[in-house]
Amino acid sequence: MTQKNIVIVGGGFGGLSAARILLRKNHKVTLIDQRNYHLFQPLLYQVAMAGLSPAEIAYPLRALIGRKKNCKILLGKVIEVNKFEKWVRTETNKVPFDSLIMACGSTYTYFGSDQWEPFAPGLKTIPQATEIRRRVFLAFEKAEREADLKKREANLTFIVIGGGPTGVELAGSLGEITSFNIYKDFDHINAKQAKIILIEAGSRILPSMTEKLSEEAMKELRELGVEVRLNTRVSDINAEGVRIGEEFIPSSTILWAAGVAANPINKSLGTELDKQGRLFVSRLLSLPGHDDIYVIGDQARYEWGPEKTPLPGLAPVAMQQGRFVAQVIDLKARNKNLPDEFKYVDKGQMATIGRGRAVAMYKGIEMHGFLAWMSWLVVHIYYLIGFKNRLFVIFQWAWMYLTFRREARLIIEKE
Amino acid sequence: MTQKNIVIVGGGFGGLSAARILLRKNHKVTLIDQRNYHLFQPLLYQVAMAGLSPAEIAYPLRALIGRKKNCKILLGKVIEVNKFEKWVRTETNKVPFDSLIMACGSTYTYFGSDQWEPFAPGLKTIPQATEIRRRVFLAFEKAEREADLKKREANLTFIVIGGGPTGVELAGSLGEITSFNIYKDFDHINAKQAKIILIEAGSRILPSMTEKLSEEAMKELRELGVEVRLNTRVSDINAEGVRIGEEFIPSSTILWAAGVAANPINKSLGTELDKQGRLFVSRLLSLPGHDDIYVIGDQARYEWGPEKTPLPGLAPVAMQQGRFVAQVIDLKARNKNLPDEFKYVDKGQMATIGRGRAVAMYKGIEMHGFLAWMSWLVVHIYYLIGFKNRLFVIFQWAWMYLTFRREARLIIEKE
Repeated sequence: MTQKNIVIVGGGFGGLSAARILLRKNHKVTLIDQRNYHLFQPLLYQVAMAGLSPAEIAYPLRALIGRKKNCKILLGKVIEVNKFEKWVRTETNKVPFDSLIMACGSTYTYFGSDQWEPFAPGLKTIPQATEIRRRVFLAFEKAEREADLKKREANLTFIVIGGGPTGVELAGSLGEITSFNIYKDFDHINAKQAKIILIEAGSRILPSMTEKLSEEAMKELRELGVEVRLNTRVSDINAEGVRIGEEFIPSSTILWAAGVAANPINKSLGTELDKQGRLFVSRLLSLPGHDDIYVIGDQARYEWGPEKTPLPGLAPVAMQQGRFVAQVIDLKARNKNLPDEFKYVDKGQMATIGRGRAVAMYKGIEMHGFLAWMSWLVVHIYYLIGFKNRLFVIFQWAWMYLTFRREARLIIEKE
Repeated sequence: MTQKNIVIVGGGFGGLSAARILLRKNHKVTLIDQRNYHLFQPLLYQVAMAGLSPAEIAYPLRALIGRKKNCKILLGKVIEVNKFEKWVRTETNKVPFDSLIMACGSTYTYFGSDQWEPFAPGLKTIPQATEIRRRVFLAFEKAEREADLKKREANLTFIVIGGGPTGVELAGSLGEITSFNIYKDFDHINAKQAKIILIEAGSRILPSMTEKLSEEAMKELRELGVEVRLNTRVSDINAEGVRIGEEFIPSSTILWAAGVAANPINKSLGTELDKQGRLFVSRLLSLPGHDDIYVIGDQARYEWGPEKTPLPGLAPVAMQQGRFVAQVIDLKARNKNLPDEFKYVDKGQMATIGRGRAVAMYKGIEMHGFLAWMSWLVVHIYYLIGFKNRLFVIFQWAWMYLTFRREARLIIEKE
């Protein structure tokens, strides 16, 4: 009854959740990922902001599931999927499958202005996080040694584009760094005079939360010295700063947290995509016309709820979908009845702003301030993988909270 | 009485030791470094071997001493020293000095074959350490997905060139990784079959230690599966492997731990250099003819002991010299009598090979095995800077010892 070969592409929240259940039920699984580690993306901004080290939020896939006898791991990027002959191909290997789970996640989009990327990096990978860290802390050093007051001001101006959770977390952390962590460390500059500007095109930040929580988040950001500009569209980004209509804001550190786009591989699968490039999937999360090919997480468009809204790109969605398709595959292998459709259980949403500051909503309950922040800490520690990583992150956070220090602020030179 | 302006170039062991004493004695100090952190170099090989994270062995200079009112820190690389007008220049700033301490350390040399560097990186910086980590763990992944047996063997062949402490520590760690840490993690390869070859041009490894300890180290390396080749000179290194006379050893991972050369800035100072490019210094560690310019650590050639041998490039030498020149500068400022000469107190030497395996010598006492290893652990924790770093490193080591895991083995992609 055991399936011949189940291939999972992507070891993120979705792929890993699926793999764990399939392995437990003794199916043969091949996990393909272009990285050798699972990354706990929700804390990546803390690597960028010098609170944590990469190894504390990443876990080697082989150490996680690779020792199971029914698990193979292949390092590589999938560049081709053949739906009919049923195989996937990486740069180096061709792997046949009986069932396929695509869980490749999403990427950033610059809305057609890809030339902005070198000046305004996004935050999806560890190298991007350490690059942002390098730019932020180098900006203070440049300001410190700069005699020209205008240039110094540009070095002390930090612009975050995009008012979703990542943008809010980055802007809040920058506010915390300049308010608490480093203001005593310089002679010529006062880090408290740094300008932090959060730019959002829509009418409020954290648009997926309630209006009240958007307001609270705005208030908490302002308390940390962050200027929030709503209904504001960036018209150009270059090495000198950001243009907003007539206004030009000189800045040497611009961070991009605005547009999310689905993985480019979606286009090669030959079925319908939505505007954001996500693949429409069946009620069992399979590709239309291909029952054995499942698409989950950020890659998939699945409508749910009374208003049939597409599910957002959140870790709980990917995890629930991963577990669901694993169960479907297992039930099929055992010739059991299948469920009607994937049912999403809303796990709420949260975003942290700074020490003692966060917003959270869960089943109609709204929280902000210290209580929301504590909930945020507990939830993130709980979902982090690996006992040692949990212990280290708890300790790093306690240390940072008590000492007001951020000790991972290394400016690692580029080779 | 306080000195006007003391400039220290380099925040390594020597420069930092000098800075701490001068700051305590209320002198004005400007510390210039091209990095914003002090790096605990003796543990850098553990970052390369996935035992530790960079932030655990590096400490931001500003957090360390930058908050003292009499301390300025300037991020930059010194590209010019004017001995007569008494200033140094970085790419961005010109800094006048009354006294100057040069503590810029050393670099690797490929003995005129710089074209080898891309194929055999050295281990002096954090980017080099993470690059070595990437190559080592990628080699196992490549071997795993390789069908061609010859290519697989090349991917599982690791060559370390240079039998000094760094070379021994790298080769020993590789032996440990393949013997204990990851052999269960792969399906197609047996990591225990990996070949690790340590190549030394001289007649024994660890030549600065006693012959008996060299023998012990050889034995311990062999127990970890390392093949040691003495009296062996590399004649070429390329992308395919290493040539030794007639023999060619195919290998995809080659590490360089052979030749150390002084900082290139030495040549610009216009005084005599020894063969290794180090500056000859006076008995007070100053540059001949320039009493207010001191040169310490790996940059200086200072002869000592009954046989007048030049002091080796070790952390204790740099630290003692840093403290010594700080005292000389302070005594001069207070018009006190100066000491006759710098007196080195031998702190012994040690090198670790693997779990429970090390060699150490201290004042005629020789140790090897578990006891030497415990001493090595204690000494390195003691000298590591920062309470949090100490705690984290102790915990990482205990975890690694008990679980046989190395969890920092992330293959971080290049941007």
